[in-house]
Amino acid sequence: MSLVLTSLCRTESTVCRHPTAFTRAFSSNTSKKRFRSSSHQETKQFRWKLAAAASGAVVGMVTYNYIQNKPDLTFLRKPVQAKSDPVYSSADVAQHADKQSGIWVTYQDSVYDITGFVESHPGGEKILMGAGGPIDAFWNMYAVHKTPEVLQILEQYRIGKLSRRDQKAINLNDPFANEPFRLPVLRINSQKPFNAEPPLEVLTDSFITPNELFYVRNHLPVPDFDLENFKLEVLVGGRKLALSVDEIKKKYKPVTITTTIQCAGNRRQEMSQYQNVKGLTWGACAIGTARWTGVRLRDILLDAGFDLNDNRFKHIQFNGNDKDITKSSYGGSIPKHKAMSIDGDVIIAYKMNGVDIPRDHGYPLRVIVPGYVGARNVKWLHQVVASDEESSSHWQRNDYKVFSPSTTFETADYKKAQSIQEMPVISAISTPAEGSKVESDDGVIEVKGYAWSGGGRDIIRVDVSADGGKTWKEANLVKDKPGADDSTHSWAWSLWNAEVEVTPGKKNEIVCKAIDSAYNCQPEFIGPIWNLRGFLTNAWHRISVEVEDDE
Amino acid sequence: MSLVLTSLCRTESTVCRHPTAFTRAFSSNTSKKRFRSSSHQETKQFRWKLAAAASGAVVGMVTYNYIQNKPDLTFLRKPVQAKSDPVYSSADVAQHADKQSGIWVTYQDSVYDITGFVESHPGGEKILMGAGGPIDAFWNMYAVHKTPEVLQILEQYRIGKLSRRDQKAINLNDPFANEPFRLPVLRINSQKPFNAEPPLEVLTDSFITPNELFYVRNHLPVPDFDLENFKLEVLVGGRKLALSVDEIKKKYKPVTITTTIQCAGNRRQEMSQYQNVKGLTWGACAIGTARWTGVRLRDILLDAGFDLNDNRFKHIQFNGNDKDITKSSYGGSIPKHKAMSIDGDVIIAYKMNGVDIPRDHGYPLRVIVPGYVGARNVKWLHQVVASDEESSSHWQRNDYKVFSPSTTFETADYKKAQSIQEMPVISAISTPAEGSKVESDDGVIEVKGYAWSGGGRDIIRVDVSADGGKTWKEANLVKDKPGADDSTHSWAWSLWNAEVEVTPGKKNEIVCKAIDSAYNCQPEFIGPIWNLRGFLTNAWHRISVEVEDDE
Repeated sequence: MSLVLTSLCRTESTVCRHPTAFTRAFSSNTSKKRFRSSSHQETKQFRWKLAAAASGAVVGMVTYNYIQNKPDLTFLRKPVQAKSDPVYSSADVAQHADKQSGIWVTYQDSVYDITGFVESHPGGEKILMGAGGPIDAFWNMYAVHKTPEVLQILEQYRIGKLSRRDQKAINLNDPFANEPFRLPVLRINSQKPFNAEPPLEVLTDSFITPNELFYVRNHLPVPDFDLENFKLEVLVGGRKLALSVDEIKKKYKPVTITTTIQCAGNRRQEMSQYQNVKGLTWGACAIGTARWTGVRLRDILLDAGFDLNDNRFKHIQFNGNDKDITKSSYGGSIPKHKAMSIDGDVIIAYKMNGVDIPRDHGYPLRVIVPGYVGARNVKWLHQVVASDEESSSHWQRNDYKVFSPSTTFETADYKKAQSIQEMPVISAISTPAEGSKVESDDGVIEVKGYAWSGGGRDIIRVDVSADGGKTWKEANLVKDKPGADDSTHSWAWSLWNAEVEVTPGKKNEIVCKAIDSAYNCQPEFIGPIWNLRGFLTNAWHRISVEVEDDE
Repeated sequence: MSLVLTSLCRTESTVCRHPTAFTRAFSSNTSKKRFRSSSHQETKQFRWKLAAAASGAVVGMVTYNYIQNKPDLTFLRKPVQAKSDPVYSSADVAQHADKQSGIWVTYQDSVYDITGFVESHPGGEKILMGAGGPIDAFWNMYAVHKTPEVLQILEQYRIGKLSRRDQKAINLNDPFANEPFRLPVLRINSQKPFNAEPPLEVLTDSFITPNELFYVRNHLPVPDFDLENFKLEVLVGGRKLALSVDEIKKKYKPVTITTTIQCAGNRRQEMSQYQNVKGLTWGACAIGTARWTGVRLRDILLDAGFDLNDNRFKHIQFNGNDKDITKSSYGGSIPKHKAMSIDGDVIIAYKMNGVDIPRDHGYPLRVIVPGYVGARNVKWLHQVVASDEESSSHWQRNDYKVFSPSTTFETADYKKAQSIQEMPVISAISTPAEGSKVESDDGVIEVKGYAWSGGGRDIIRVDVSADGGKTWKEANLVKDKPGADDSTHSWAWSLWNAEVEVTPGKKNEIVCKAIDSAYNCQPEFIGPIWNLRGFLTNAWHRISVEVEDDE
């Protein structure tokens, strides 16, 4: 207990004004007897209190870490348990590895009987991989578990602790031992796997995002590549084409495509502020623009024997070389028409902004699917497969789908929902920063930001308001140089700036909304697009700034 | 005066409770001296009163006409003027035909000096075509003038009346003498040119809209065709290809494309209810779906010598055979990439739902531009031109563009704004009808409607709410038969139905919103998309129904 409490109090003293009460509440939880007592109502109330206290503490911590830019993950350490707990050995646990004998697992020093939870696991039956043993390595792999909320769910199933000898015996190999260097300025949303975004105040300072500042969205550890022996596999029906990176460069015509890539979770922070969602807490910077050089996927597939009139193939699947603990790799797929259309501009890239693709962004090969969600721009590409169905990967079938605001985890039908592919119109204000104090120049301030839409739809207008949306000023759009690459489509974002009239001496709500070339617009509020996974937060972007009185 | 008043009172007695006061107010206007007196303030006040009275009368009339389905256009007749007016001859008027001597025109029996108005004419310099003569024929041609508001503007410039002899001498040829037969069930928004839509309650009864019930959006009179001598002209650089309809049918591969066509003004009625806009008052039925048979525009252009790598050409222009009073025709254009892409599915059609295209829909040839605004699906096609610029037609350059809600007619920059081409996502409820009383089945009612998006983006979800948008039910989608035509894209609408829980004994606000395959969604409210021309009203569709108590 003391460990957690110390950590919490160190990070933000204001949320921990009453450590004694907090200790009392928490330690009462360490008695299994009390936890499982008939006083269910009391336990429930206590859990709520605990959740509130823990949430408060976590908010404080996150704030602190954001300021310090050094994430503290000690809150993921479970509380040390009281001595009265039943003690189990690894052998005891191993005997409970199926539904008949019950599903037991260990995490850190504790033992859990999760039989009653298996059915509700959002990741499905994958949970059974951990049955009868430690789940620590899986949690290292699947960062989504590393939240206080998930830890709390797990705690409900605690039945005792693991013997000290077995605690030591469990060798927790860290698959993340070989990650590349990253700039400390990145705002880290998850350390393992690494997920981070650049600061909003620099994001729109250049049309092309520097590689080092490009947001990183890794689902698994960054793989190592033995380039000498690496060949990209292309499977079309019974035929297989194997190509080294050099062969790819020599055999096909090189093209450069400038495209904005955006994570489906960009701006999730705002959606989770509206109502809790499951997923990494991205700000507005899980987006960036780069010039990718490579060869057309279409050229490679035609070379591999792909017949455009062959209706067997409806999807092109991609597999990365980043692997999970079961050695299955990250994967995704796109519809055939996008992959094979000359207009689609899908390439297999080997350069990002003129240099070899950095390890965090897919070295040596990455699929670039302009106008589509980041998740299909598969990194560390090692296999392309023409198929009659979508990728069977978890991230294609059971993730990156959006449900209605009234859909819950219980009612979500992943089979029926459509994978996110083409992206909707979005925009955001980069400066001034939310909550900042600004000086106006005769009642006028400059506002800057970005706007983007998927599917090659250009941004045709950005409206900016300084009165929360009552009146609007049209922003100036900054676009890519004409003819900067080999595409005639608008795959890249528009940057924008506008001078808007503000009211000094008070808070002003600055709002932006973009319109794309199909005259699609952004929704006004988050409520009607809220979804349990927090995807596609493209409501108007709103910030509040204090405008100082003119002297 | 009596004529107008009689007409107003006949149509809706409730709006004319005080004919005497109304007569007094109106007749005071007939004295030119009074009208131009120094008592400017009084005149202004009187004009407002008049506008209010006239607006009320018109609302009543429109309501009445809607019910009767027989539009009464007598309000367009100007009031008969008092005898004291100065009298001018046609020769007098003809001497004022340029800015130096002033711009005079006549309308019906009156003479106007519109020199001060020419600059503010929304249609630009086209107004000068009427200088020095009668504008009646132009107003017959451009229905947009035929509103009480425009008539009021004109009245401000009245300087006298036209001699009786010259009134008779002006021969007002009716270019609309040879219009085709139309079903009386259509709801007419403008008689000349003819603009009408089917009733909402039948619109979604079939996936394919019957030709006779397909909305008609004519900008000019329906032209006659001498099919024997007709040749479609295709101009590519210096080359010209001329093709008869038979040659088109024989020379190129026929294809059938099923597409939804929608007018940019669909649902304008709702936008004008929010705040007044300029344009025809369409309900939610300026949309329909048909199977069009023809040949690919791409095939014809390639045959005419179009070189895909020739960057001179950026737009493909279309000219119809429907002509205005100056013999210039309706026109529009689309970007080259849409016209030439195999994926674009642009065809020159000669059949609509299996029969020769009806006269109202473009006989004998019509461009079909799937996923684009109706206005570019040019009817009565007689010319295709490859060009470096957009069509110079009024409807391409100075119409069918959308501005921000804060843009006025004074600040609208038509050169900067982008032409509407690809359409945004939209949906509407077809049953139950707005304001109707419905019986629920154990607290449940069935709701039906349509949903569509441009650009070939499929509808992936329609959410329906019976509590104004607090909770949502996912609708069942009804789509076209797979393989029903020669396209692999989703150019046609989805029909939908849903059973929603309602609260009997009170009014329920039923709402729908659709999401397309790029996860674009509809805006919640009209305010933020309001635009002076009332285009693209794609906010959530809302109706209010009285649910009767269960017995």
